Amino acid sequence: MSAIQSWGDTLRLLVELLATAAFALSGLMEAARKKLDAVGVCVVAFLAAFGGGTLRDLLLDQRPFFWVQHTEMLWAVLALCVLAMGFMRQRHFEITEKTILWPDALGLGLFTATGVHHALQSFMPLVVAVLMGLITGVFGGVLRDMVCNEIPTAFKDHHPYAVCSFAGGWTYVAIWSLDTPGWVALLGCLIVTVGLRALALWYNWRLPAWRA
Amino acid sequence: MSAIQSWGDTLRLLVELLATAAFALSGLMEAARKKLDAVGVCVVAFLAAFGGGTLRDLLLDQRPFFWVQHTEMLWAVLALCVLAMGFMRQRHFEITEKTILWPDALGLGLFTATGVHHALQSFMPLVVAVLMGLITGVFGGVLRDMVCNEIPTAFKDHHPYAVCSFAGGWTYVAIWSLDTPGWVALLGCLIVTVGLRALALWYNWRLPAWRA
Amino acid sequence: MSAIQSWGDTLRLLVELLATAAFALSGLMEAARKKLDAVGVCVVAFLAAFGGGTLRDLLLDQRPFFWVQHTEMLWAVLALCVLAMGFMRQRHFEITEKTILWPDALGLGLFTATGVHHALQSFMPLVVAVLMGLITGVFGGVLRDMVCNEIPTAFKDHHPYAVCSFAGGWTYVAIWSLDTPGWVALLGCLIVTVGLRALALWYNWRLPAWRA
Repeated sequence: MSAIQSWGDTLRLLVELLATAAFALSGLMEAARKKLDAVGVCVVAFLAAFGGGTLRDLLLDQRPFFWVQHTEMLWAVLALCVLAMGFMRQRHFEITEKTILWPDALGLGLFTATGVHHALQSFMPLVVAVLMGLITGVFGGVLRDMVCNEIPTAFKDHHPYAVCSFAGGWTYVAIWSLDTPGWVALLGCLIVTVGLRALALWYNWRLPAWRA
Repeated sequence: MSAIQSWGDTLRLLVELLATAAFALSGLMEAARKKLDAVGVCVVAFLAAFGGGTLRDLLLDQRPFFWVQHTEMLWAVLALCVLAMGFMRQRHFEITEKTILWPDALGLGLFTATGVHHALQSFMPLVVAVLMGLITGVFGGVLRDMVCNEIPTAFKDHHPYAVCSFAGGWTYVAIWSLDTPGWVALLGCLIVTVGLRALALWYNWRLPAWRA
Repeated sequence: MSAIQSWGDTLRLLVELLATAAFALSGLMEAARKKLDAVGVCVVAFLAAFGGGTLRDLLLDQRPFFWVQHTEMLWAVLALCVLAMGFMRQRHFEITEKTILWPDALGLGLFTATGVHHALQSFMPLVVAVLMGLITGVFGGVLRDMVCNEIPTAFKDHHPYAVCSFAGGWTYVAIWSLDTPGWVALLGCLIVTVGLRALALWYNWRLPAWRA
């Protein structure tokens, strides 16, 4: 049993690293499109990678932040920035964007679960916990876009993204309230979030626009 | 006496609900104008309705947030978003904007008073308390505009809005320092803020521009 | 010895006041260029002057804020705004921008040192301390630009600014880890930050752009 758990922990860490890299890469590419300098590239990548979790911890008043406890993540994102500026060119952007769709969706699911988990640990009401999951998963990208002077993609591109996180968050809450072990809720949240996101991309689902 | 007080509390709750709805509606309409999707509409409405108070509580380091204690407000704003997307059309925007001028002004006054009150409870200096009142009343709209990639209306449209809140905040502080009961300060702040705002709208007062 | 220290403290206070004024002026002028009204001018000046330190304190969960303990700074910046709106005209902007280059560089160094110092006092890891120094020095300007609906200058103008703060922060950390008195680290940080900034301006150094 403990072997399975440790195997699960390793898997989780791997997903987390992949997801953080995917989020950072989305920031890198947006910064490149906006022709930012080296400093801007790094800051936008950091915001995309760590912004959501940091905002959640600010709202929940939790310290230390994730990246204070794991400063190796800061160095990893910094290294990614340096490598990208050295070797990544415009012609790699399209393939990168397609490649990171999967780790990004996994990250959305994992970060949502983490956010809900933290909020439930702080005895937040259920709806607030789901909101915190959504903020963790989505607001890194929102901050990235705000700094780059764009309306956040998550709010205007009509592709389901935040709603996948919302559904996944409620899944986590539902399973958790059945007193099952934490990893079941995590897995349920992941499956719902990533599944919905994959379906949405596959069938090109569109969010309802306001016929204003 | 206690009957009057309970009557006052009910009135206050009513004003609060009206004001929150007015703030959320201002967010809804800005999101619609920017052609955001359903997620964007909800987020901008939430930011407009709860952003100011949340920023104040972050700065004062106070928890729980208003919307964590009263999650029914979250559901109410969500319901408002769904209803608006279902039934509200562009042709209703102008009339809505005129209709919400009053609840918006009431909300500005009430939120200012709440902000000043919270800050004074935390033993802040008087000028900081007034600042917190202003942030509570005005920064929901500022966050709404920042997410929608606009320079905040409160900073550029030359109509007195934040200054009404500023004057109301000092009124609250002045009355409070005379050791009168809380509702007198609240009433004074409301009268000054709403009165100034009404006069400003009526006589079309303009803030001084910088002849730069 | 104590005479020297008190002389040092006075000098430091003077630099701090100068730097805050320089930061506020940068906000004032950006607000004027964007044709904001009186409220916008004040808010942008406040954000530029106090935004970086406030964000740092939020992240480090430290209270009270600098401007809560020294409300005279709030009044000073407000007075600066009123004076500027009364007497400063477009034709003074160019000369002002040149004049504030020095106090701005001094402020960058001093604020960086303050940020690193606060973070080290809170037992943050070294890299986080350097990051907090950078946030203190640079993010006032970032918030100023975000509110004015611009991509932050610090991220796109290719002139070394944040990197000077970054180098200065590591200098502080290096000297501090040798158990020298605080003012030595402060001085080292100031010399490196201001020196690099001066060299960068003098030789017109450019940050590497991403050849994307």
